[in-house]
Amino acid sequence: MEELVGLREGSSGNPVTLQELWGPCPHLRRRIGGGLEWLKRKLFRVGEDWYFLATLGVLMALISYTMSFTVGRVVRAHKWLYREIGDSHLLRYLSWTVYPMALVSFSSGFSQSITPFSGGSGLPELKTILSGVVLEDYLDIKNFGAKVVGLTCTLACGSTIFLGKVGPFVHLCVMIAAYLGRVRTQTIGEPENKSKQNEMLVAAAAVGVATVFAAPFSGVLFSIEVMSSHFSVWDYWRGFFAATCGAFMFRLLAVFNSEQETITSLFKTSFRVDVPFDLPEIFFFVALGAICGVLSCAYLFCQRNFLIFVKTNPLTSKLLATSKPLYAALAALILASITYPPGVGRFMASRLSMKQHLDTLFDNNSWALMTRNSSPPWPAEPDPQNLWFEWYHPRFTIFGTLAFFLVMKFWMLILATTIPMPAGYFMPIFIFGAAVGRLIGEALSLAFPEGIVAGGVTNPIMPGGYALAGAAAFSGAVTHTISTALLAFELTGQIVHALPVLMAVLAANAIAQSCQPSFYDGTIIVKKLPYLPWIRGRKISSHRVIVEHFMNCSITALAKDMPLEEVVKVITSTDKAEFPLEESTESPILVGTVRRAHLLQALQAEPPSWAPGHQRSLQDILAGGCPVEPVTLQLSLETSLHEAHNLFELLNLQSLFVTSRGRAVGSVSWVELKKAISNVTNPPAPK
Amino acid sequence: MEELVGLREGSSGNPVTLQELWGPCPHLRRRIGGGLEWLKRKLFRVGEDWYFLATLGVLMALISYTMSFTVGRVVRAHKWLYREIGDSHLLRYLSWTVYPMALVSFSSGFSQSITPFSGGSGLPELKTILSGVVLEDYLDIKNFGAKVVGLTCTLACGSTIFLGKVGPFVHLCVMIAAYLGRVRTQTIGEPENKSKQNEMLVAAAAVGVATVFAAPFSGVLFSIEVMSSHFSVWDYWRGFFAATCGAFMFRLLAVFNSEQETITSLFKTSFRVDVPFDLPEIFFFVALGAICGVLSCAYLFCQRNFLIFVKTNPLTSKLLATSKPLYAALAALILASITYPPGVGRFMASRLSMKQHLDTLFDNNSWALMTRNSSPPWPAEPDPQNLWFEWYHPRFTIFGTLAFFLVMKFWMLILATTIPMPAGYFMPIFIFGAAVGRLIGEALSLAFPEGIVAGGVTNPIMPGGYALAGAAAFSGAVTHTISTALLAFELTGQIVHALPVLMAVLAANAIAQSCQPSFYDGTIIVKKLPYLPWIRGRKISSHRVIVEHFMNCSITALAKDMPLEEVVKVITSTDKAEFPLEESTESPILVGTVRRAHLLQALQAEPPSWAPGHQRSLQDILAGGCPVEPVTLQLSLETSLHEAHNLFELLNLQSLFVTSRGRAVGSVSWVELKKAISNVTNPPAPK
Repeated sequence: MEELVGLREGSSGNPVTLQELWGPCPHLRRRIGGGLEWLKRKLFRVGEDWYFLATLGVLMALISYTMSFTVGRVVRAHKWLYREIGDSHLLRYLSWTVYPMALVSFSSGFSQSITPFSGGSGLPELKTILSGVVLEDYLDIKNFGAKVVGLTCTLACGSTIFLGKVGPFVHLCVMIAAYLGRVRTQTIGEPENKSKQNEMLVAAAAVGVATVFAAPFSGVLFSIEVMSSHFSVWDYWRGFFAATCGAFMFRLLAVFNSEQETITSLFKTSFRVDVPFDLPEIFFFVALGAICGVLSCAYLFCQRNFLIFVKTNPLTSKLLATSKPLYAALAALILASITYPPGVGRFMASRLSMKQHLDTLFDNNSWALMTRNSSPPWPAEPDPQNLWFEWYHPRFTIFGTLAFFLVMKFWMLILATTIPMPAGYFMPIFIFGAAVGRLIGEALSLAFPEGIVAGGVTNPIMPGGYALAGAAAFSGAVTHTISTALLAFELTGQIVHALPVLMAVLAANAIAQSCQPSFYDGTIIVKKLPYLPWIRGRKISSHRVIVEHFMNCSITALAKDMPLEEVVKVITSTDKAEFPLEESTESPILVGTVRRAHLLQALQAEPPSWAPGHQRSLQDILAGGCPVEPVTLQLSLETSLHEAHNLFELLNLQSLFVTSRGRAVGSVSWVELKKAISNVTNPPAPK
Repeated sequence: MEELVGLREGSSGNPVTLQELWGPCPHLRRRIGGGLEWLKRKLFRVGEDWYFLATLGVLMALISYTMSFTVGRVVRAHKWLYREIGDSHLLRYLSWTVYPMALVSFSSGFSQSITPFSGGSGLPELKTILSGVVLEDYLDIKNFGAKVVGLTCTLACGSTIFLGKVGPFVHLCVMIAAYLGRVRTQTIGEPENKSKQNEMLVAAAAVGVATVFAAPFSGVLFSIEVMSSHFSVWDYWRGFFAATCGAFMFRLLAVFNSEQETITSLFKTSFRVDVPFDLPEIFFFVALGAICGVLSCAYLFCQRNFLIFVKTNPLTSKLLATSKPLYAALAALILASITYPPGVGRFMASRLSMKQHLDTLFDNNSWALMTRNSSPPWPAEPDPQNLWFEWYHPRFTIFGTLAFFLVMKFWMLILATTIPMPAGYFMPIFIFGAAVGRLIGEALSLAFPEGIVAGGVTNPIMPGGYALAGAAAFSGAVTHTISTALLAFELTGQIVHALPVLMAVLAANAIAQSCQPSFYDGTIIVKKLPYLPWIRGRKISSHRVIVEHFMNCSITALAKDMPLEEVVKVITSTDKAEFPLEESTESPILVGTVRRAHLLQALQAEPPSWAPGHQRSLQDILAGGCPVEPVTLQLSLETSLHEAHNLFELLNLQSLFVTSRGRAVGSVSWVELKKAISNVTNPPAPK
């Protein structure tokens, strides 16, 4: 502006003010002013939330990257120690085992000492919270430090403990979102709103997945599939925006840190593009999906029962109750001893990190064909150029190593999930699935060394494609999601196997969903958290079930003209948190609800005047300030089960009153819905 | 089995029956029998619906493929005619223009003569249907033939008319699903159920998109984004299953027909994989997204207003009302004349088909750099090896041709959308966006011929990547969807540009969504179909608006003890289709609703006995068989706007009664919701 004024001054000799400069064209000036005003309004209208979501994405990307960076350094230090410690087997064994033991027991002890909620992945609890249950303090920001430090230690154990990052990271992200939301409402001075808050948490969950995998699409979809049963397209857009900010920032940091030249995917593959697979291979892909589905059922069954066993067994339950770090250290000792490379570890590629596991498994060459005639010796150090040699053992061959890896990791993973520390269970499952796929892919490439002949053209089989399908199918089956297929593409940066992978995932899901609850639902069941099941099957007959058939008819209502003694009797006879309030005993019209807590408070404040001459009723207490909450939604006797279920899921409700002609005739809560749903899906046998 | 029996016979000499063969192990036999029984039960439990969805997918793939095949043949015949007709300009011109004119006017005339609903894409109407409005006959199977024939003719015009397939195909698919659903309920003998039916229609919409593009992921997501505002994860899984069946079958047919060696994507690209773009290019991608957003606003504005102009202008409206084929032929004449290749058409690559347009625009080489020093002449025939020469004109250069293409297609496309015939508008928009991106990409590659230097490494710019981003961003902005980004990856089979494309789409959507209604919403507005807007902005203040603030308080209720004269008076005073029924005039408790039609029927059947001595009331009529429908859901005065909006969208409601203490005190329908939403998003200026 000053430059402009200067220019004018230079040409005419007289200094002019901005007013004068713009003077001649007041119309244009007003227009520009109006335009700017309009732009400002537009931005602010979209505003608020978008700024918040972008901040969340960027912040989480920074945390995620810093964590990865730290973990990388710690792992490198461990490797250096193991390499430099000399040839003594004892020292090597100690350096291999003590490191993860120390980290795990610190992780467990530190995080548990700060908050008891920090164990596990956190996704089951989040799922419960997002469906409307209030878990006190679970999203408190004071858990943040415990979870970050604990998770970093867990990840620093690398492939020895073989655990991941996603679950706790989603929890972290939701924590931050809840905190930022509180800060915002305090700053603006607006009251907190629950449905507004929930919108933010859903977006935050998407950011969590996206910043770990740098995969915005599958981040959003995966978090939706795992967390909710209904969602609005509006939330989905917000999720995309936040997830994109997060993923972009996460990869940007990698570029700035010179790890990569540009923004690419995490586990880049180089599958053949022109003819990635032959048509008959589709059959094998679907079969692989079915195998993964069956395996996932076995895994889910064993995992859930082992968790119950650990909780009920006197020895382990006492150990877990009194000294969690000790239990963690013992479990870590077992896991680390087995993966000790000069021992059994050499048969299960235990010198590779988890990232290297995936990178090698997605390799597009067939190892079986490459080692058919020549057998490379087991190298003293992993060869950075040929990392896949780790999967090969001269006596065992590729197949032995892969099968051994699968058998051992199956129970090792189940053992690892019982350690009470912040850890994610998605990545290990993903790698396990990749190994299943690789094994089958290698077998196929050996069975058809020339490739499958179709239409006169032969194309060698790529076992990497099967590893990709296996990873997506197994992880999809365990978590009951389909978006893992998309995740596989986003992670590898190639989408050439789109249809076969999707078909494998669908096959795996069909089996897993009809036999076992998902990993997260299983944990919810074991931890006895409240949850609302699906209405499966959706037979037409299920649409005929109405509220009248399954509602809870015995409600304890209060009437406005009830004498206080009776009110006290009613309150003490039950422990419900809320009571429906009726107009009067004679005309029992529902007018609202009263909270037990409020009522007790009011009753205690009331002077005890139980004289028979002065009969006081509930009406007096209500007039005295005990708040009556309005009933915003009520069911009718004729509402269908599906409608009621939809309402509960969509609006995150806990219970609703059923009214008929204005009178409260019953109530429906999760308990009744659960019972009705189980009756619909597994109808009781006719007697 | 016979072989087994034979074996046994051979070894022992005596023939044994199957019974004997299995005789020794009854335990195993029972187990196998039980296992088979279990499998059968399992399959049937999942059953029904899955078979239905798979059938739908396969059927639609067959139809889609047959249609593409037929269209291909007709287009080839046109090309042959144009080539062989000789060098006379008049003959060539006639052969170029008469062919599409005939096809378009036949398409328009034939389809309109059978059903008036066959024009346009059908998506806006489907959106309305899926939100709960009943559009009579719109999904009737008798429209099917008209739409198939009409669409085939439209597509056979190729790039002259420049229209696509998606919209009408989704409509076809939903029609088939509705028909199959009816057949199924009739076969099983179960009554039809609306919510069950809706589930099927949502899945069918996904199949429609998936079988056109062979893209299951984006098929599901696109149909969700366009059609609904809420969806359940359950529907999303079903959509995936059906879409995968459809997409697989569609591509399988292409392989069987020897068009392709294996199952691949439709528009395969070959972008550089190692460093597909440099970090600073992200900025240009976002800028491209913003440009596409602005352009889409201009397009949407012009399109909507031209549609209104055509409807209100006396000349065109008369033409459209009396002779639709003539209007169609005239529009086709204009479009075909402009694309005539020896004329103006040579500056807009009009000899390419729409598929070739996309294939060339996604080319990864920079045409600007390739033609900087050498200028190939305009070929007499398109060169199959270098189809992109069509985009180059020695005098105009690449930039002139692309810019001319954009300017001309802008209004040509708007003109084409007014022709009343079955046609999809997604594909042309996608190509238009690709051209926008290509133009900017070429400009960038000319501005930075060495590529953008970042971190010491130079990588030439790929204009094809910008075309991809432009296509996704422009089509996303016009339709207000984000899944077009995913569609771009599924169509091209490469996902290397994941983040930049997603960011461009988000930028474009941010602009388009805040300025203009989407293409489909715009059509809904122009066609005056009912629709429920979003609650945009979602300011916290909007959460405080409750039903009491905006409900319609003037309801005309009937009481059971109302004399018949009064009932007749009430009915004749208003034209509502439904009346709330109250217990009695004195205690106006809502007990149900009565339909106007039923009431009229009952009143007419009633013997006219208006004698003053015999005062008959509504009660008598109701007892005489006039049905009272139950109120399954009722709002309270304190229900929030957000809750009410969610309810209406999720449960596809038209109107709800508001009750307070059992009495109907008001009603809320789309009209009131719309008003409340517009007040929340654009608060009235304070006076």
